[in-house]
Amino acid sequence: MERPQNRGNDQMRTVRIIPGFQKYPDGSVLIEAGDTRVMCSAMMEEKVPPFLRGKGSGWVTAEYSLLPSSTETRTQREASKGKISGRTSEIQRLIGRSLRAVVDMPAMGERTLWIDCDVLQADGGTRTAAITGSFVALYLAFKKFKEQGIIETIPVKDFVAAISVGIIDGTPILDLEYIEDSQADVDMNVVMTGNGDFIEIQGTAEGTVFSRAELDQLLELAGKGIQELIALQKTILGV
Amino acid sequence: MERPQNRGNDQMRTVRIIPGFQKYPDGSVLIEAGDTRVMCSAMMEEKVPPFLRGKGSGWVTAEYSLLPSSTETRTQREASKGKISGRTSEIQRLIGRSLRAVVDMPAMGERTLWIDCDVLQADGGTRTAAITGSFVALYLAFKKFKEQGIIETIPVKDFVAAISVGIIDGTPILDLEYIEDSQADVDMNVVMTGNGDFIEIQGTAEGTVFSRAELDQLLELAGKGIQELIALQKTILGV
Amino acid sequence: MERPQNRGNDQMRTVRIIPGFQKYPDGSVLIEAGDTRVMCSAMMEEKVPPFLRGKGSGWVTAEYSLLPSSTETRTQREASKGKISGRTSEIQRLIGRSLRAVVDMPAMGERTLWIDCDVLQADGGTRTAAITGSFVALYLAFKKFKEQGIIETIPVKDFVAAISVGIIDGTPILDLEYIEDSQADVDMNVVMTGNGDFIEIQGTAEGTVFSRAELDQLLELAGKGIQELIALQKTILGV
Amino acid sequence: MERPQNRGNDQMRTVRIIPGFQKYPDGSVLIEAGDTRVMCSAMMEEKVPPFLRGKGSGWVTAEYSLLPSSTETRTQREASKGKISGRTSEIQRLIGRSLRAVVDMPAMGERTLWIDCDVLQADGGTRTAAITGSFVALYLAFKKFKEQGIIETIPVKDFVAAISVGIIDGTPILDLEYIEDSQADVDMNVVMTGNGDFIEIQGTAEGTVFSRAELDQLLELAGKGIQELIALQKTILGV
Amino acid sequence: MERPQNRGNDQMRTVRIIPGFQKYPDGSVLIEAGDTRVMCSAMMEEKVPPFLRGKGSGWVTAEYSLLPSSTETRTQREASKGKISGRTSEIQRLIGRSLRAVVDMPAMGERTLWIDCDVLQADGGTRTAAITGSFVALYLAFKKFKEQGIIETIPVKDFVAAISVGIIDGTPILDLEYIEDSQADVDMNVVMTGNGDFIEIQGTAEGTVFSRAELDQLLELAGKGIQELIALQKTILGV
Amino acid sequence: MERPQNRGNDQMRTVRIIPGFQKYPDGSVLIEAGDTRVMCSAMMEEKVPPFLRGKGSGWVTAEYSLLPSSTETRTQREASKGKISGRTSEIQRLIGRSLRAVVDMPAMGERTLWIDCDVLQADGGTRTAAITGSFVALYLAFKKFKEQGIIETIPVKDFVAAISVGIIDGTPILDLEYIEDSQADVDMNVVMTGNGDFIEIQGTAEGTVFSRAELDQLLELAGKGIQELIALQKTILGV
Repeated sequence: MERPQNRGNDQMRTVRIIPGFQKYPDGSVLIEAGDTRVMCSAMMEEKVPPFLRGKGSGWVTAEYSLLPSSTETRTQREASKGKISGRTSEIQRLIGRSLRAVVDMPAMGERTLWIDCDVLQADGGTRTAAITGSFVALYLAFKKFKEQGIIETIPVKDFVAAISVGIIDGTPILDLEYIEDSQADVDMNVVMTGNGDFIEIQGTAEGTVFSRAELDQLLELAGKGIQELIALQKTILGV
Repeated sequence: MERPQNRGNDQMRTVRIIPGFQKYPDGSVLIEAGDTRVMCSAMMEEKVPPFLRGKGSGWVTAEYSLLPSSTETRTQREASKGKISGRTSEIQRLIGRSLRAVVDMPAMGERTLWIDCDVLQADGGTRTAAITGSFVALYLAFKKFKEQGIIETIPVKDFVAAISVGIIDGTPILDLEYIEDSQADVDMNVVMTGNGDFIEIQGTAEGTVFSRAELDQLLELAGKGIQELIALQKTILGV
Repeated sequence: MERPQNRGNDQMRTVRIIPGFQKYPDGSVLIEAGDTRVMCSAMMEEKVPPFLRGKGSGWVTAEYSLLPSSTETRTQREASKGKISGRTSEIQRLIGRSLRAVVDMPAMGERTLWIDCDVLQADGGTRTAAITGSFVALYLAFKKFKEQGIIETIPVKDFVAAISVGIIDGTPILDLEYIEDSQADVDMNVVMTGNGDFIEIQGTAEGTVFSRAELDQLLELAGKGIQELIALQKTILGV
Repeated sequence: MERPQNRGNDQMRTVRIIPGFQKYPDGSVLIEAGDTRVMCSAMMEEKVPPFLRGKGSGWVTAEYSLLPSSTETRTQREASKGKISGRTSEIQRLIGRSLRAVVDMPAMGERTLWIDCDVLQADGGTRTAAITGSFVALYLAFKKFKEQGIIETIPVKDFVAAISVGIIDGTPILDLEYIEDSQADVDMNVVMTGNGDFIEIQGTAEGTVFSRAELDQLLELAGKGIQELIALQKTILGV
Repeated sequence: MERPQNRGNDQMRTVRIIPGFQKYPDGSVLIEAGDTRVMCSAMMEEKVPPFLRGKGSGWVTAEYSLLPSSTETRTQREASKGKISGRTSEIQRLIGRSLRAVVDMPAMGERTLWIDCDVLQADGGTRTAAITGSFVALYLAFKKFKEQGIIETIPVKDFVAAISVGIIDGTPILDLEYIEDSQADVDMNVVMTGNGDFIEIQGTAEGTVFSRAELDQLLELAGKGIQELIALQKTILGV
Repeated sequence: MERPQNRGNDQMRTVRIIPGFQKYPDGSVLIEAGDTRVMCSAMMEEKVPPFLRGKGSGWVTAEYSLLPSSTETRTQREASKGKISGRTSEIQRLIGRSLRAVVDMPAMGERTLWIDCDVLQADGGTRTAAITGSFVALYLAFKKFKEQGIIETIPVKDFVAAISVGIIDGTPILDLEYIEDSQADVDMNVVMTGNGDFIEIQGTAEGTVFSRAELDQLLELAGKGIQELIALQKTILGV
């Protein structure tokens, strides 16, 4: 089996992160991974959800949306259906948890950072691109707040990036694109820190199962990809 | 009163239309009017709404969305609220009607063309930019279907573009940007054809009224702007 | 082409406004325009929406509903569908804007005047009848509040009425009834003040377009009709 | 304790039933009981709900709505809330069951008769007035269908009317108006046929209880009131 | 006609009430009536609904749910449908009213007691079992609060239980099970106190009517059943 | 740190699976893991979702609900909120995927097996108990269909069970109960087959991260627990 564009099994698609993509958000990027394109932004609101009021801590929350025209077959707009799908809800929660894992929320003050991830084009790996891009948008927002004297230090404890890995016909591969996704026997999303630790692992067999040995290979591939993504984030952020 | 960037009262912002902005839709553009940016796409579905089934006619329908990060203060996601606002609903209906006015729907066959207008950045005039951009996306889609032999001719009877005009401190001006919008006493959206006829006029006094003489001035400004937009559409489409 | 009951092209249907139609509202009328019948009421609430709290200004808001039995074919109840249609939402917003244009909202105090327009019978022109009738209900409510010493003067700056005009087979006509509405090539709703200025113009071509000359004829017809309506409002209100 | 207008404890308010109140429905009345006014209509639809398809039987279903301006304090519109209240749902089901009890549904053919009860003014007893008025609207609709040859006989087995009874300060009274309703210790709605049999009894103690003897007195009062209502229905219908 | 298991017409199914069925609620029982099984719980919340705030009174409210697997044919989950059916809404209101009729709400303090009735198995009479079981759960909760010193006395004025009665083929019977329910011509739910007074009577003819004599027989049967249920409640509660 | 009841770090709570807990479902169990109690049922419906119609394959789908009284603080009913939470949606999808991984869906015929998991008491590990219990309910349903001749063989390819593991204060432990859950730094749910392969791994760091070495320890603990659960399933099913 050959991958599209003769990609190696452990080779990621070209990733670009364009900072300052939008003018209103406090932090904003467009992240491209191959043909996948996600617009990620961070906007501060001067209040926290009810469960945190008066507790002296901030909050980071994320929303995700697949735009109708981002997919091969048009995706029905969730606003028109009047509710968010289970898939969207899962992804939103995953992005939020991943970012909160590295943010020092008490150091933010009683504020919410809203992360919005709108998928302009979906060619596989939108949720992991959203996490990788959102981290940069969040960092840019905090940098701006520090420059404005709103906070004293950037309340971020480590870098975060995410990648998908999977198994097709018995072969573990890194960074699945859409056409590969649909053939994969196993699909796994991994979120890791700059330090090489895990924040999330979500592995799912699709109509089959996977062994411990296969799991080990997938985690190794993911680790390699995430190191490359974090190197790119550092270049963009100049840190 | 001086306009931002010393624009003349009858001068539009710079407009750019980038065709082929997305890879999946049948037709797709990014339209920029100053800092306003709307992604417009057209995607065909091989069926029509129930009221048209078996009648041998096609249909064109539009959806519009202000992305949360597109506005100065974050806009709550309609999918999260579980319903579409009155404003969104009005705009969607306006875009759909404007396009249907120039499409020969029986010549489309029993198909629906879905138009999606997603606002990436909102600096005034998003609904009129959406109409102007959508027309190009729609035309590109029909051109593709003609090339593929799905339809015999491009079922479009005339060009369509739209612009906003308004009155600030008694002065009629063309193409309001966001900062002007909020000060306007009168706000009017005009949709016209290449032939110079009207499709829609929606004029609203905001806390004041307007005279017949003012109306005439506004319509003249709108006519001038729309001619420029249609000239640009023709250049982009090479017709 | 002949109009029903041999009406002239510039002739309105007989309009009746019955004040005091309901006992609980602060102001209430039944307005009849031919067979169209709309029950309009105004009820005060001693609070304002969140965006106005503490700003010393009042608010006027309107709701509109087509009762299921008001139309030739039964209209599904929006409460049963669980949401308001785009059409209803547009009309509600139009009624509210039209009335707010002539109300001195700071002079109301921090109160909301709720306008309800329930269509008992729909034979064309329900939204314009709703505006014309609601103005009388609103005026009656303010008159009552003045008599009760709640406000010092009636905070109304001018009269407001509305009418529909349209083009059928190339002929501009005034005040379309239902059977005409469905054949009209152009449909326009005009809201004007007692002073002859415009508050709203909403003109829509239905499957065709309209020229500047046609627009001028339509506005002239509308002006004539609105003058007659405002004369009637004055008679009813005794002012 | 004296009742408003010195009504006797076993005396109903004046009831008026105005047939043909609306022009579109197949059957239509306005029923007034004192200041309570309910517009009742019956409209045929040429299909039945899924559970009856192909079974050769018709269906009768009812919807009920308290218009916002019908109550002393404005009632929030259920369409705006996006759902029907428990109270509305109960009343709709009660009206539907009461009418179905006397309709020969197989004789209707596979059709649905939609009953709409819109309360224009609510001064107590709206649900019972809705039942009493709807029966007349339904009968008028069937009469029209018979005249049109759609059905051969009027598929109605008996008359139906309803009334409320209650206990205030230990005294059983007939036909409570709004001011009495709020003081009642027991509130009971009774639906009976022309033959004097029961279709529904719904009695509720409000913060107290009621004895068997009190129940007997309430049922006697209800029987008296319903006889009078059915006599009025017969006069109106000329049967 | 013979009843299942040769039950006599005035004979109830075996009823069991198992207190302490769940560990978290303040009061909890499983009630079984034949194969009907309802889990009833009472949980205190330290606040009251808005309409009672600051009035020094408590509140009792109930929710009811038929679990999907509790019925012969699977019942669609209301959470999945996104709304509560009319039937559920009616039953919830009935349970709440029945309990509030015997609770001294001012003596509760400003607290809400939430009653949850989840039907694990539905073989007829679930709403009446829910009332009978909930009363025990409520009493157990109040007993616990008294032991904890939260309240001084158990704020309960009388016992409450409920039973269904009905008429099949002209014969009045007590405590209908599911197979009987579907054949019943009349279905009546009766809620009574330990003192023998009524709280609610809800009798419905299903496609027929019932006479006064039949009503009397039904009420007698219900009285007999409720006495037995209250005796069982007393045994369980040891009072 | 000591675990409640001095449980060893690799020791599961006592698990009980009670088959035939409900009378209507095709397969039904109550599963208890310590104080966690989940009622699991399997009910057949003779149709498949639209995307499978005419494809000759069956479907397995699951719904999950936390009953309001199952948690220490009452959980608001999702039917009352009008929507399913993100957490519920995630769990429902996880249960469905886990079961479908071992079912031979073409061998089921065009039928849907509905799995319902209703949590009667929640003391940690409800989703993994739901998977473990549902597998038994599903197996019992298929066994019944085989006995009835509806299917020829039991279309199940392997056993499935699930368990949670986590890290508290640096110590990996098996089968977290509620009090441990809230203190856990890492929380992982693992779904495995009888053969020792993985179906799902979902590991989440809560406010911290976890290393590769910790991951290995967690997977070992999970494997041990799942073997014990599958042994119990085999005993219950007698296979």
